[in-house]
Amino acid sequence: MKELAAALPHGRLLTDPDVTASYARDRTFARPGIPRGVVLAESVDDVVATLRWASAHRVPVVPRGAGTGLAGGATAVDGCVVLSLARMTRIRELSPEDEIAVAEAGVITADLDRAAREHGLMYAPDPSSAGISTIGGNLATNAGGLRCVKYGVTRDSALGLEVVLADGQVLTTGRRTVKGVTGYDLTGLFIGSEGTLGVITAATLRLQRLPGPLSTVAAEFASLRDAAAAASAIIAAGCRPSLLELMDRTTLQSIDEWKNIGLEPGTQAMLIAQAEGPPDEMAALCRAATFVATSSSEQEAAELIGIRRLAYPATERLGQCLVEDVCVPRSVLPDMISRIEEAAARHGVMIATIAHAGDGNLHPVFVFERGLDEPPPEVWAAADEVFTAALELGGTLTGEHGVGLLKKRWLELETGPVVTELHHGIKRLFDPLNILNPGKAI
Amino acid sequence: MKELAAALPHGRLLTDPDVTASYARDRTFARPGIPRGVVLAESVDDVVATLRWASAHRVPVVPRGAGTGLAGGATAVDGCVVLSLARMTRIRELSPEDEIAVAEAGVITADLDRAAREHGLMYAPDPSSAGISTIGGNLATNAGGLRCVKYGVTRDSALGLEVVLADGQVLTTGRRTVKGVTGYDLTGLFIGSEGTLGVITAATLRLQRLPGPLSTVAAEFASLRDAAAAASAIIAAGCRPSLLELMDRTTLQSIDEWKNIGLEPGTQAMLIAQAEGPPDEMAALCRAATFVATSSSEQEAAELIGIRRLAYPATERLGQCLVEDVCVPRSVLPDMISRIEEAAARHGVMIATIAHAGDGNLHPVFVFERGLDEPPPEVWAAADEVFTAALELGGTLTGEHGVGLLKKRWLELETGPVVTELHHGIKRLFDPLNILNPGKAI
Ligand SMILES: Cc1cc2nc3c(=O)[nH]c(=O)nc-3n(C[C@H](O)[C@H](O)[C@H](O)COP(=O)(O)OP(=O)(O)OC[C@H]3O[C@@H](n4cnc5c(N)ncnc54)[C@H](O)[C@@H]3O)c2cc1C
Ligand SMILES: Cc1cc2nc3c(=O)[nH]c(=O)nc-3n(C[C@H](O)[C@H](O)[C@H](O)COP(=O)(O)OP(=O)(O)OC[C@H]3O[C@@H](n4cnc5c(N)ncnc54)[C@H](O)[C@@H]3O)c2cc1C
Repeated sequence: MKELAAALPHGRLLTDPDVTASYARDRTFARPGIPRGVVLAESVDDVVATLRWASAHRVPVVPRGAGTGLAGGATAVDGCVVLSLARMTRIRELSPEDEIAVAEAGVITADLDRAAREHGLMYAPDPSSAGISTIGGNLATNAGGLRCVKYGVTRDSALGLEVVLADGQVLTTGRRTVKGVTGYDLTGLFIGSEGTLGVITAATLRLQRLPGPLSTVAAEFASLRDAAAAASAIIAAGCRPSLLELMDRTTLQSIDEWKNIGLEPGTQAMLIAQAEGPPDEMAALCRAATFVATSSSEQEAAELIGIRRLAYPATERLGQCLVEDVCVPRSVLPDMISRIEEAAARHGVMIATIAHAGDGNLHPVFVFERGLDEPPPEVWAAADEVFTAALELGGTLTGEHGVGLLKKRWLELETGPVVTELHHGIKRLFDPLNILNPGKAI
Repeated sequence: MKELAAALPHGRLLTDPDVTASYARDRTFARPGIPRGVVLAESVDDVVATLRWASAHRVPVVPRGAGTGLAGGATAVDGCVVLSLARMTRIRELSPEDEIAVAEAGVITADLDRAAREHGLMYAPDPSSAGISTIGGNLATNAGGLRCVKYGVTRDSALGLEVVLADGQVLTTGRRTVKGVTGYDLTGLFIGSEGTLGVITAATLRLQRLPGPLSTVAAEFASLRDAAAAASAIIAAGCRPSLLELMDRTTLQSIDEWKNIGLEPGTQAMLIAQAEGPPDEMAALCRAATFVATSSSEQEAAELIGIRRLAYPATERLGQCLVEDVCVPRSVLPDMISRIEEAAARHGVMIATIAHAGDGNLHPVFVFERGLDEPPPEVWAAADEVFTAALELGGTLTGEHGVGLLKKRWLELETGPVVTELHHGIKRLFDPLNILNPGKAI
């Protein structure tokens, strides 16, 4: 550790156990190990020095952005060094002409978006955590978000990366151009690899032109299936929504209890949609709705979407939450919702579901009593049923949060043995000493 | 070879040298080796049998779609078996609800698009070769096309793959859902790998909703720079063109000499743009144009775009062609065009340039005299200058055609040594015996 301290500028290495403990977990219940230190990197050189040292001494390194992850990916392992990128916050370049930005890993997602907006552009990927998560964490998990129904996930906005490998070598992948096929797609390989193949220090990212005036529709339904059907109809009609969110009764009720949104007793689901152009077509497609509010003013829209933003904090008022993340083909969204309701009933577990309905991406939130260190067995049993159902319906275990630690148990059910072998082969190639976020993601 | 014949249904293995020779090259001058046979696979089993046999006997295998490649990727190597996927032409599934299709590798690109159109959908990636190239070849090269300025390249339409590895193991990558982050991005790794990591037998592909009525603008300019500036303006204004093509004087003249399109003496460039909505805004943005034609009727539009489709065959009437493919950040498109003109002048070579202007992707076509077996040294010298210029301007060696054989010489200039080492490591992992398209792409 003395060697590491000497290799870094003063103040970048923390070892006080009280302090390092606060860097040991993400937003999950995954039980962390005890790190031997935390590096607060401020430059690529700091990252290089840390990884060279770690390679020389075979010390595990857990890369960390803001620690907002929901899969346990940034959980410390015993004796590791946590390598925080949170202080690498420079936007190195923003080119309105080429509609790209070069941002360091620690830039907060919403800050990049704000910087782009000064030029009439935006950074499209917007996880609900955009105000607190980092670009590096978004890339490492290939984060989704509300707007990805129109603009795609983080991968779709990434043109190239600057990465430090486990042995401290620096490489750049990809390019500044919108197209390019030179060599294998290393950019794609690092994205979503949850810190197991390399540490991302910066990225060249696509910006998007701001859309024209948006209109917003919020519709209430007497059944979740009706709401899911309306979501399908909006997609099928080609409305190209840039947001299409579904909330179930449990979620709505928790919001209503907190903020009094005047929830009707018969309302089982709410759909919120946003698109360019007038709201009429989307509203008309909410055929079975019991109530529809439309808006073309920004302020009203913000109020309608504000309801969606309350979903997580409102649910957290009910107890502790295991936030899950499955994704199914759009056409079976109603079936998946039924399967979640069945699992909740069978195991006597409260599940509040919100969905990025336009992507078939559901977040069932399992609520359980406070004071427990981790979700009780019936929650895991219900979650197991939900994961299995997603796979049976042609879906995937994780639409956007990643595998981390929490989903490793189910991983091979989805990928099969040949893919698993390739995953481990790739891991060995990039990280032969297994020091980069060992035990995660694969 | 007897063993291979026995492992395949009758008629799938060709060994007559006159016949096999016609499977030995793509559309380039790359000098082919002599294959020992050609397998016309009709099923995954045929591919598995071929690769098992090839692994057992360490025989190189050159995967092949339609052989329309422009990088030498499908060029036979001495003693290889050419593995043609062209007979695997089944569309296994087409789901209008989920807007996906599962197509075998040999499906002709335009056939998939046609099948989708029966359901009001389209398959967006449309290389100019769409009528003759295969889905497998498109995936293996990550093909672009005219529409990718709006819809992205082949990678952006691929959700998952069925792949046979070098040792004959079959795997599926990716998923049927629009989002998903389980495991490393193997789908992305196989796409663009030019047959060096695995043989793609089928793919799950996204379909897109058909756009509303399109309007078309064709504008003539007195300088290429003016035309490039108009292209930038159309993108910057947010017109979201689904096609934005630029042709230089040499190209236009070759078309005019053949089909008499009434080319004015002062016209140095033509821009063709297509987008949803009325043509007025795009037309107005062609500020410096000497002539502008607009159209909202399908037939007129087809005539305008027909001019662009004549570009390659018209140039081929002038001599033999080396079709090149560089891509630069959009803002330096005019500079890149100047650099191409300088290279042409300096080396006394005729270069006809067309560009997917919206992507910064240029195809300088080097014309040289008939009868030669390959491009003469001055053509390569000019090409070298063009490649170097693209890299200097922050661009890439190949926007969509791939590295194949022809660009290997320049590859490391773009990627650098660390990436090169990773490329070779990945190759060794997937193909330890180096039997899959050896010597290509990396
Ligand atoms: C309220 C809330 C809402 C959320 N909403 C969404 C949502 O809508 N969509 C969504 O996708 N996620 C969502 N998340 C999950 C989380 O915010 C995302 O996964 C986010 O991308 C994590 O970013 P982070 O900077 O916090 O990364 P961390 O949690 O610090 O790390 C996440 C993973 O990435 C690795 N990592 C981090 N930085 C780097 C780097 N520079 N190089 C290499 N590896 C690195 C870590 O090792 C870990 O495996 C939400 C979380 C919360 C708390
Ligand atoms: C007139 C013309 C216009 C063109 N326009 C464009 C354009 O606009 N955009 C563009 O991107 N390209 C264009 N091309 C180039 C070419 O058509 C594309 O590269 C196309 O994707 C090749 O498809 P193919 O089936 O002919 O593949 P092939 O030429 O047979 O093979 C191409 C490469 O892919 C590999 N391969 C083929 N099938 C498989 C498989 N199933 N599994 C693994 N590897 C495989 C081969 O080994 C080779 O390396 C054009 C070519 C011509 C002749």
